[in-house]
Amino acid sequence: MDTVDDLDLLTQRLSPGAMTTDPDLLQSYRQDWSFDPAAGTPVAVVRASTASDVQETLCFADSRSISVVPRGAGTSVVGGSTAIDGAITLSLERMRSIRIDASSRTAIVEPGALTNDVKAAAAKEGLYYPPDPSSFEICSIGGNAATNAGGPCCVKYGVTSDYILGMTVVLADGSIAELGGDRIKDTPGLSLTKLFVGSEGTLGVITELTLRLIPQPPTPHTLVAFFPLMSEAVTAARDITNRTRPSELEILDNAAIKVAEEFLRMELDTDAGALLIGRSDAGNAAEAEMELMRTHCEKRGASAVFVTDDHHEGELFIRPRYAVYEAFEQKGVVIGDDVAVPIDKLPELTDGIADIANRNNTTVVSYTHAADELTHPVLNYPVADEAAAASAAAARREIYDLARALGGTVTTEYGVGQHKRGNLSNALDPVVVKLNRAIKNAVDPNNILNPRVLIP
Amino acid sequence: MDTVDDLDLLTQRLSPGAMTTDPDLLQSYRQDWSFDPAAGTPVAVVRASTASDVQETLCFADSRSISVVPRGAGTSVVGGSTAIDGAITLSLERMRSIRIDASSRTAIVEPGALTNDVKAAAAKEGLYYPPDPSSFEICSIGGNAATNAGGPCCVKYGVTSDYILGMTVVLADGSIAELGGDRIKDTPGLSLTKLFVGSEGTLGVITELTLRLIPQPPTPHTLVAFFPLMSEAVTAARDITNRTRPSELEILDNAAIKVAEEFLRMELDTDAGALLIGRSDAGNAAEAEMELMRTHCEKRGASAVFVTDDHHEGELFIRPRYAVYEAFEQKGVVIGDDVAVPIDKLPELTDGIADIANRNNTTVVSYTHAADELTHPVLNYPVADEAAAASAAAARREIYDLARALGGTVTTEYGVGQHKRGNLSNALDPVVVKLNRAIKNAVDPNNILNPRVLIP
Repeated sequence: MDTVDDLDLLTQRLSPGAMTTDPDLLQSYRQDWSFDPAAGTPVAVVRASTASDVQETLCFADSRSISVVPRGAGTSVVGGSTAIDGAITLSLERMRSIRIDASSRTAIVEPGALTNDVKAAAAKEGLYYPPDPSSFEICSIGGNAATNAGGPCCVKYGVTSDYILGMTVVLADGSIAELGGDRIKDTPGLSLTKLFVGSEGTLGVITELTLRLIPQPPTPHTLVAFFPLMSEAVTAARDITNRTRPSELEILDNAAIKVAEEFLRMELDTDAGALLIGRSDAGNAAEAEMELMRTHCEKRGASAVFVTDDHHEGELFIRPRYAVYEAFEQKGVVIGDDVAVPIDKLPELTDGIADIANRNNTTVVSYTHAADELTHPVLNYPVADEAAAASAAAARREIYDLARALGGTVTTEYGVGQHKRGNLSNALDPVVVKLNRAIKNAVDPNNILNPRVLIP
Repeated sequence: MDTVDDLDLLTQRLSPGAMTTDPDLLQSYRQDWSFDPAAGTPVAVVRASTASDVQETLCFADSRSISVVPRGAGTSVVGGSTAIDGAITLSLERMRSIRIDASSRTAIVEPGALTNDVKAAAAKEGLYYPPDPSSFEICSIGGNAATNAGGPCCVKYGVTSDYILGMTVVLADGSIAELGGDRIKDTPGLSLTKLFVGSEGTLGVITELTLRLIPQPPTPHTLVAFFPLMSEAVTAARDITNRTRPSELEILDNAAIKVAEEFLRMELDTDAGALLIGRSDAGNAAEAEMELMRTHCEKRGASAVFVTDDHHEGELFIRPRYAVYEAFEQKGVVIGDDVAVPIDKLPELTDGIADIANRNNTTVVSYTHAADELTHPVLNYPVADEAAAASAAAARREIYDLARALGGTVTTEYGVGQHKRGNLSNALDPVVVKLNRAIKNAVDPNNILNPRVLIP
């Protein structure tokens, strides 16, 4: 096959300027935010601006068994859109339209729209699109759907899957499938919409999403509580979540508190074993919810508790959680990871992470979505320091081993991608692996769609 | 094949007494609550009490290409467990264990447990299992999972799928697959748990479910509002749901009000075009939510509005919705159906239903989950009256045509089953039909599992 001639054929069928084979540009599409040094180089990048561009690209690739790596904003930290040598990278970054229908409380969006832009467009109509991954300002809504993204709001509002009513996907053979619909309770056969959400581009390429919106909740009240011990914060969190549904409930470990304090200088207690941040957006019930949280924090040994119903003070109270990333970005490479252990094992996990960081002479801090039992270890090391990168990589592997030893999982809200596929193979039962593979084969028989991610 | 000898082979591998071929008993497993006169007669009924019984039955059937109809409590109104001539009906009614783990807020349940028993077991620990299909006192949790059952609470709390963390299923070949897990944010490959929920027994047979529980919400406040016109109630409902999230929001049409009043004698306004019932369980915010609802109801023309924060009075206020079924059961056959149209088309739908009932000389009333845009037409006719049954059947078909003409769907929260599979075939795009079929073939290659339901 003369690939160059063949690509000429494809480019004629695409929107003008959609395809590039410029080496410099190809280079910039090699890696995503997992910064995989082993990332391949695509043979071409197609930046689709219409569903037809996506169809043409897949028809072309499928008939030639060329792999296709779909890519949103490229913010995957697990290699969800890491390029493959000789494959086409299909970027959706140009498909960004957002249409809000306030009367049906839905948004019709293209996959390249940034999550933050979707949220803002909804907010203009007094509506709310809840899912809030940490990267919401820079990640795409299509990527959120592909990974079933979560965030702090999930404790009360659920994950991306809960807000997708329908989607248009282009299948590997170029055919277009309209999945789901704009009714909340449609049952159009098997739950294909739910199957495609979280499939990381292995089953089809999303060209449009119909999202469910909800009324904008009231301004949240905010509580922060310092605990001498992580175990106390965990017990308080469990007491709270057994009784009420906060709109956010996060726990920072001691290492995270220290990094935040160094960056923010807001007199955080850097001796504390844990900082718990709780919010309630329950309107007139928020005050009672805050009192309930305060009571349980004090009962479980909190050394200091602060509560505010003020918007600006509340935003200040939650700053430590976000400061970790900002502080680390100034210092070098930041890698956000995620693992999940049963909540009562969290103290062992965070102690273990501190120990692993020490032994590997690297930096790891963690914060936890306490109600969802999901912990984000965040690693940091100097740019262009191979030894430091290797130490961080070793620490990550040890953290995975620890999480599994504690009865947890390492494939959680950031997705599986290329990076964690091996971990998944080890963790999954052979029957389930076979089932995943059977469905993949049924939907993408030539295995062209993102063939190195997710499915063992 | 000598079936009788073969069945003897199977019965030796099952728990004692699991299998029956007693003609009288077989007769009682022919129909479900869709009362399909064309229901087949099973060759045998297996009442499994262990996962092994399910495995043995499927291995046996798969190797002989005998169809298997899984059955929970048999309350499907769309023929989800209607028997097939020569097939084995596999009942899960004996698998009823319920185990609550309060510390992780989960319930591990067997599929035959009644939904009401799951709710009660959770409540004992101060926890709440929200999904509340009308039949929750008599339907099984496995059937709820198989159909992704909903109910009035869905407006705020979502459907069954939102509460299933993991499940154990036996696949057609008898292998056991553990899907999902007990972590909220596990990503074990493709979203198979979500795919199996709502698959109506076509992909596997559930032998265990891990359910997510939430804290028990406070006692709800309740509002009832009568409107001269259905259109006014609809506008009020839309105003309300654009601003807040009630825990329940139902609308009864005039025909339903009349039936409820005749049965309850509680001085309902039988001239009203619509009765709106709203609830809020938002604790200290409930009063404000009630005031907001009252304001919007009055603004949109409500002739009378009543609000209560009293538990018993609240239960009285919502009685009309449930009275419809009770009143009809005393009179004869009751058929609950469901269709969904965009909420602004609801007045056309309910007017149309009244007209259809008149023309066919049958009885149909309706109530609507207003926030989810889902309407339940409920039909009633004398027992053993074939002409009346035919009129009701004709009316149902006309209601389906009307719902579709109004831009709606007829395959909604009650599932598709055998009864609505033809409707689904007509409504679905060929690409989506092909996709459904490809996945079914991949998971159940001999097409033994409930082969007449759901998948076109």
